[in-house]
Amino acid sequence: MRTIVVGGVAGGMSAATRLRRLEPEMEIVVLERSGHVSFANCGLPYYIGGVIEKRSALLLQTPSSLAARFGLDVRVRHEVVAIDRAARTVTVRDLDGGTEDSLTYDWLVLSPGARPVRPPIPGIERALSLRDIEDTDALAAAAQGATRAVVIGGGFIGVEMGENLVHAGVEVSLIEATAQCMAPLDPEMVEPVHARMRSAGVDLRLQGLVVSIDEEGVTLDGGERVAADLVVAAIGVQPDTQLARMAGLAVGERGGIVVDEHCRTSDSAIFGVGDAVEKRDAGDGSSVLVPLANTANLQGRRVADVIAGRAVEVRPVQGTAIVGVFGLQVASTGWNEKRLRSAGRAYRAIHTHPADHAGYYPGASTMALKLLVDAETDAILGAQGVGQAGVDKRIDVIATAMRGGLGASDLADLELAYAPQFGSAKDPVNMLGYVAENLATGLTENIQWHELQDALDAGATLIDVRTAKEHAAGAIPGAVLIPVDELRDRAGEIVSDDVVVHCAVGVRGHVAAMMLARPGRRLRNLDGGYMTWKAGETTQ
Amino acid sequence: MRTIVVGGVAGGMSAATRLRRLEPEMEIVVLERSGHVSFANCGLPYYIGGVIEKRSALLLQTPSSLAARFGLDVRVRHEVVAIDRAARTVTVRDLDGGTEDSLTYDWLVLSPGARPVRPPIPGIERALSLRDIEDTDALAAAAQGATRAVVIGGGFIGVEMGENLVHAGVEVSLIEATAQCMAPLDPEMVEPVHARMRSAGVDLRLQGLVVSIDEEGVTLDGGERVAADLVVAAIGVQPDTQLARMAGLAVGERGGIVVDEHCRTSDSAIFGVGDAVEKRDAGDGSSVLVPLANTANLQGRRVADVIAGRAVEVRPVQGTAIVGVFGLQVASTGWNEKRLRSAGRAYRAIHTHPADHAGYYPGASTMALKLLVDAETDAILGAQGVGQAGVDKRIDVIATAMRGGLGASDLADLELAYAPQFGSAKDPVNMLGYVAENLATGLTENIQWHELQDALDAGATLIDVRTAKEHAAGAIPGAVLIPVDELRDRAGEIVSDDVVVHCAVGVRGHVAAMMLARPGRRLRNLDGGYMTWKAGETTQ
Repeated sequence: MRTIVVGGVAGGMSAATRLRRLEPEMEIVVLERSGHVSFANCGLPYYIGGVIEKRSALLLQTPSSLAARFGLDVRVRHEVVAIDRAARTVTVRDLDGGTEDSLTYDWLVLSPGARPVRPPIPGIERALSLRDIEDTDALAAAAQGATRAVVIGGGFIGVEMGENLVHAGVEVSLIEATAQCMAPLDPEMVEPVHARMRSAGVDLRLQGLVVSIDEEGVTLDGGERVAADLVVAAIGVQPDTQLARMAGLAVGERGGIVVDEHCRTSDSAIFGVGDAVEKRDAGDGSSVLVPLANTANLQGRRVADVIAGRAVEVRPVQGTAIVGVFGLQVASTGWNEKRLRSAGRAYRAIHTHPADHAGYYPGASTMALKLLVDAETDAILGAQGVGQAGVDKRIDVIATAMRGGLGASDLADLELAYAPQFGSAKDPVNMLGYVAENLATGLTENIQWHELQDALDAGATLIDVRTAKEHAAGAIPGAVLIPVDELRDRAGEIVSDDVVVHCAVGVRGHVAAMMLARPGRRLRNLDGGYMTWKAGETTQ
Repeated sequence: MRTIVVGGVAGGMSAATRLRRLEPEMEIVVLERSGHVSFANCGLPYYIGGVIEKRSALLLQTPSSLAARFGLDVRVRHEVVAIDRAARTVTVRDLDGGTEDSLTYDWLVLSPGARPVRPPIPGIERALSLRDIEDTDALAAAAQGATRAVVIGGGFIGVEMGENLVHAGVEVSLIEATAQCMAPLDPEMVEPVHARMRSAGVDLRLQGLVVSIDEEGVTLDGGERVAADLVVAAIGVQPDTQLARMAGLAVGERGGIVVDEHCRTSDSAIFGVGDAVEKRDAGDGSSVLVPLANTANLQGRRVADVIAGRAVEVRPVQGTAIVGVFGLQVASTGWNEKRLRSAGRAYRAIHTHPADHAGYYPGASTMALKLLVDAETDAILGAQGVGQAGVDKRIDVIATAMRGGLGASDLADLELAYAPQFGSAKDPVNMLGYVAENLATGLTENIQWHELQDALDAGATLIDVRTAKEHAAGAIPGAVLIPVDELRDRAGEIVSDDVVVHCAVGVRGHVAAMMLARPGRRLRNLDGGYMTWKAGETTQ
């Protein structure tokens, strides 16, 4: 029995090594087009930036180490150029020798990954992209000689490349076609990310479309020129399906190889894993592209299980992801509000700004958290977080709660590890649960930053319950200042039956809302307070 | 309607403030025996150590701030000395004025907390304990003048006091009566904690029993003297039930006030919350004492809900907890192995030593993780972790998975946020799931450090699959060295049908075990490898 794995990184290598452990006698051949296998994909930008100093650190395994430990036949610079499904053979080209050979398989695992999107604009051939070690070497060399770089695209890779080119001493312009970087985040959540990039010296240009690239830089659609001696295209990735298409395997609407819950393609002897395949979304079961290493690894493991006769289903994906941006942690899981809105789902949003650990213990920093909740079932639909510390933990906890089927209100009851260095007695995740419970039971009502203007236009009275000093430092137009600690005495000043209260983050607003509630009066607390409103207004 | 809350910290204050929000018109009186309310209980040791510099940082609220914001009638230095349940009145002593007064209540919430255990040994009156701000002031003053301190007790408070006295420049002997500090951990997990305390200069004395205290130090049961000009008793806490007992409220076998799932005592007008009450254990439904701030806060909130007519059940407790020990994170949730064994439960233990984030990214450190799994149902029973970073996150994720009812094998499928600064593509929690799944499906078998000697005595062959260099630096007696990368060629050297393999942490051991498996041969991988074995042998 022989299994051939096409692609020796992440999903492909997870499949190969797991399969070896399960099937000591099976012949397992791994064919990798590039010169390296098992390299640290997610570390490549950090080597270019010098954060990871040694290139050897990126190379986790070599063909010979994999042969010694796992008895794998790993061939780099070997590209599979055709699949004969009827004969169960692949045609393999030795990219160095130039020869072609034919190999039979009993099982074939496709893990070709995704390729960078390279739009057909004049000069695109001058732009470098980042996919493998060879690209990394080219980018690292180019960064050495560069003084000004343009990074096209503000997604994960673009943002990481922007940061790392700054680390490498290069001046960076980052050009993003839409109004915000990091599409998984909603606009009001991404504002601190934009601010952090700018304060770190990145020339961030939103809603900028590059129309051509030449040796002196790029031209934007308005005719503006941005000088650069290095241009990086990080516009996104698309599944590498060339081989699959040629072999007549089903490719889905999203452009990825179609696989079932066992990662089987439309040919039962051929499996697909990783960035090249479409996955099932945990939110609604639709097909989605989620190019993430953890998912790829898990799929690889599952394919090995299936080949070894251990049928294990691959779970639908939530798309939990994180990126570091100049010391900020930016993470998300599940659906964002943009997507919920465009899908017409009934949802509630909750914004908080808690400290990563007890405020009385040194070093606490504030994060922004957002929870999205099904308005009918209280199910957790998604979460986002941005902050200096502790965001990774809270997103992981929420992702786990989602997988465990806990409702948003159940977050109130989670028992999370507390000591003042590590959290709060009421952890940020518990606090999200408290708010969710108050909303779900109808105790309170909130209003979103983007709904406020409509409410005010309809005649609502807006009360700012912060201190006079906070109000003076920045206020929402039309807000009347009554500090929360004066509100007991001054509640009579408010006569309206349509009241919106707000504070800085929503906590004092909640106290005020409960205090001012009375029959016949609609009372809403501005969710996330002034901070969320301000961030939303800035990014919008 | 009047609610009286006895005890103005954590659970009591959570009840009072939540109740105010729910019941704007209710009269709420908070009576606190000490001079302060809403103080940062968990921060007290860190003020003594100077980590928290300002005493004011400990005082989160004052009676006047609580009056202004919440309309609470908060009286410090007021002790409730009696409850007349029939008349629904409490007798309140003004500790400064010396007068007594009577107050009626509709609802009474008892949140008196727990008091330090002070065993009746000669000189115990010389020992200081830590419960409130007054104790903190006394300890901070004593630490100023001290050069040598004895801390009696190696639990949470003892360990934190030991560290903080070192921070304050005091030489510390920590005397623990049992063979290990931090009872929630199993012995092999606590070894790095002991090592860290010793390397930080703490004179750690295990299995030491203090029999008397005098002005020059303490005497141990063997007659040994330990010099000290400051003695701290941190032997544990017991529920403060004096008032409840006097009032004839039911007190349980564990010594805490008995409450139902709504925190109601045996008197339906009286509630109990926090460290003074017995809780229901999430593992087996038994009554347990879990003196933790997060549980107290949640109970306080739930009592307010119940009083306001919003019946919400308090969930059983897992007892998730964490403590910092000279830069180590030490955390646990659920049951430990000691408890499972003494309860006769069928369980599996899994030990791993993963890095907190990708090894190729700078700054990664190794942690020790332990997962305890129901051998019949695959349910997660508990987890422990010790390491420099990222332990809090993994324990929180596992605690959440437990609450969500996920099985141990389900941890394999969790989608956790991955970038190389924050985790691994196969997160430590995923890896626990991988191992759990292999064990649950019968693919592999492991053997625990404390079971190894019996297996060797019964004739098992022990193979060390590490490198020759690792073996030379420390090996298990009787182990035969065959490095994993030579094992394919040398497998024939192993003739036994009862083989135990081990490596440093268990990963290479797993590869070796799969390689050496054959029909008729029992093959076990030493769980956690040499590291866990060595730690267990050291602490045992």
